[in-house]
Amino acid sequence: MSVSRGAPTRMAREIAEIPAVVERALDEGAADLDAAAGAIARRAPRFVLIAARGTSDNAGVYARYLIETSLGIPVGLAAASVTTIYHAPLAWDDVLLVAISQSGEGPDVAAVVAAAREAGAPTLAITNDPASPLAAAAELVLPLRAGEERAVAATKTYAATLAAVAGLVAGLVARLDGRAPWAAALGQLPETLAATLATAGSWIRGDGAALVGELTRANEALVVSRGHNFATALEVALKLKETGRIFADGYSTADLLHGPVVVAGPDVPALAFRPDGAPGAAVDEALAIARRRGIVPWTVGGREVGGRDRALVVAPDLPEALTPFAYVLPGFLLAEAVARARGRDPDAPPGLAKVTRTR
Amino acid sequence: MSVSRGAPTRMAREIAEIPAVVERALDEGAADLDAAAGAIARRAPRFVLIAARGTSDNAGVYARYLIETSLGIPVGLAAASVTTIYHAPLAWDDVLLVAISQSGEGPDVAAVVAAAREAGAPTLAITNDPASPLAAAAELVLPLRAGEERAVAATKTYAATLAAVAGLVAGLVARLDGRAPWAAALGQLPETLAATLATAGSWIRGDGAALVGELTRANEALVVSRGHNFATALEVALKLKETGRIFADGYSTADLLHGPVVVAGPDVPALAFRPDGAPGAAVDEALAIARRRGIVPWTVGGREVGGRDRALVVAPDLPEALTPFAYVLPGFLLAEAVARARGRDPDAPPGLAKVTRTR
Repeated sequence: MSVSRGAPTRMAREIAEIPAVVERALDEGAADLDAAAGAIARRAPRFVLIAARGTSDNAGVYARYLIETSLGIPVGLAAASVTTIYHAPLAWDDVLLVAISQSGEGPDVAAVVAAAREAGAPTLAITNDPASPLAAAAELVLPLRAGEERAVAATKTYAATLAAVAGLVAGLVARLDGRAPWAAALGQLPETLAATLATAGSWIRGDGAALVGELTRANEALVVSRGHNFATALEVALKLKETGRIFADGYSTADLLHGPVVVAGPDVPALAFRPDGAPGAAVDEALAIARRRGIVPWTVGGREVGGRDRALVVAPDLPEALTPFAYVLPGFLLAEAVARARGRDPDAPPGLAKVTRTR
Repeated sequence: MSVSRGAPTRMAREIAEIPAVVERALDEGAADLDAAAGAIARRAPRFVLIAARGTSDNAGVYARYLIETSLGIPVGLAAASVTTIYHAPLAWDDVLLVAISQSGEGPDVAAVVAAAREAGAPTLAITNDPASPLAAAAELVLPLRAGEERAVAATKTYAATLAAVAGLVAGLVARLDGRAPWAAALGQLPETLAATLATAGSWIRGDGAALVGELTRANEALVVSRGHNFATALEVALKLKETGRIFADGYSTADLLHGPVVVAGPDVPALAFRPDGAPGAAVDEALAIARRRGIVPWTVGGREVGGRDRALVVAPDLPEALTPFAYVLPGFLLAEAVARARGRDPDAPPGLAKVTRTR
């Protein structure tokens, strides 16, 4: 298995676009974000349901944490089958439905939107295609403005979705009781992410090459974090599955200790996203247990992992709530490099289509 | 690797207790179930959050589907870290918090209960230890009455939790607008489950022995379903991980097609829980895709899988909403048999304790 030295893959090119994509989502999207925040604030939702699949569902996990930590509104991830298979009517009063789909083509997500809207609930579609059936079904639309995504594995639309979510939540906090403590850092994100990509790219060719090698030889992997970066763990694990055909599982470190830690071992590479502060301390507890099982985990994190063995420091000044934007970048680069090293085309995983239609 | 012919494992003995455990949870628990349903109905919650970890979290997935399909109240699975790590206050008005823990010892779940109760929300603890810190923290308690569970891998407490959930939801439906269509079948459950255990036990020693062999030789496995039995897929995958050290992932068949299907292949045993009716038809769509990838999945299901290759029919007369009680039984028996065949002690997976304390 050799790493192709030819033209960069679409996936690599789309990862490189992420700083610009995030900038567009926040700057060109500012008016849409403001309009959506205003419309939602007027409806004063008391509960949020998020409907999504795959990578969009992982962005939904970020949304769920950010909405709860910054707005205090309880959030649930919607089970589409309740609507599409059981045809069970939900009590949608005071519920905001957020639907996320890069293509906007998934009929199940659109069906949940239609049911909520018919019941009078505010519905918001976050999608890269404002002409999609999903956008048509929803009352409010946040277009991602990410440009066409040609690789089957979604990367830049994931980042654009995080940006739309953070921009929306910042707008809602501003309308409620002031200012999210991380809102000021949103404006610096494109710059921070460009620096992160450079750091992560050097790392993959340097110290991180050993992790690329471990993953290339592995059949299984564990990717863990806690809090906002639980989304990062899920998304990087999904990318390793999709592009590298590695049985990679993303876990909250708390859930890991409730059973799945049994599968950890020296033959299973482990990668932790470990932000500074309280979420990082919780991740450390799990890493200590992993070390006692003979595992030497790799870590991507902030200032506090500086000087640790097998650790990469990125975006040390970013508020923790925004670290998922930065931490996913070395994860995406890893998945792309590992896929090539395993002789797989990261742009076209066999058996996957860019648009998945499930009911 | 040989299957020990010695005394039955604790796990095997506790699986065998399940029909009696479910009977106790429903019969001896009737007064508690009625009191809890009455207290909750008086508070008329408009949203439900469920806090749990591991096997209890999988029972929570069942609760989430059953509450939404039978009561129409939107449900979310709580992220404990929002409370325990971020100390973010949630708006608990009109929210019912359901906490599930067999031991009742997990400090994170108890912390979420304390936060909800302090905010005035109704809180319900479903636990096997009514003297536990969790039970003390909650306003309402449903004791599981499952008896001491000595195997680390939880089986009978999972079944008892499903029974508590179904009994509670039936009581709530009765107080609202009539009668859950599956409520009458609850009374026959113990008998149905005893018959299912007999059928599943014969199958494991007969046709299912080939699946035990496949799993024994495998490093990875996929376990899938849709709807109420998504909980079954998650729980059987977790048991294969915990007791057999197989990298088994549980998926909704819809989520599987959004990426993870890439890891499917002839070397990855696949098991589907396929009830009759609309959820089963949705599972079939995914199975058809799997077959095109060279996979011959195993199926546990109802009448409609009768006569199919590699299929086991159990509890064909059970309403679909209650099939998770029956379908998990062959799954538990499989995990126990596979663990022994792989030379592992299903009662004491290395690195796991019966009580896991995470924050």
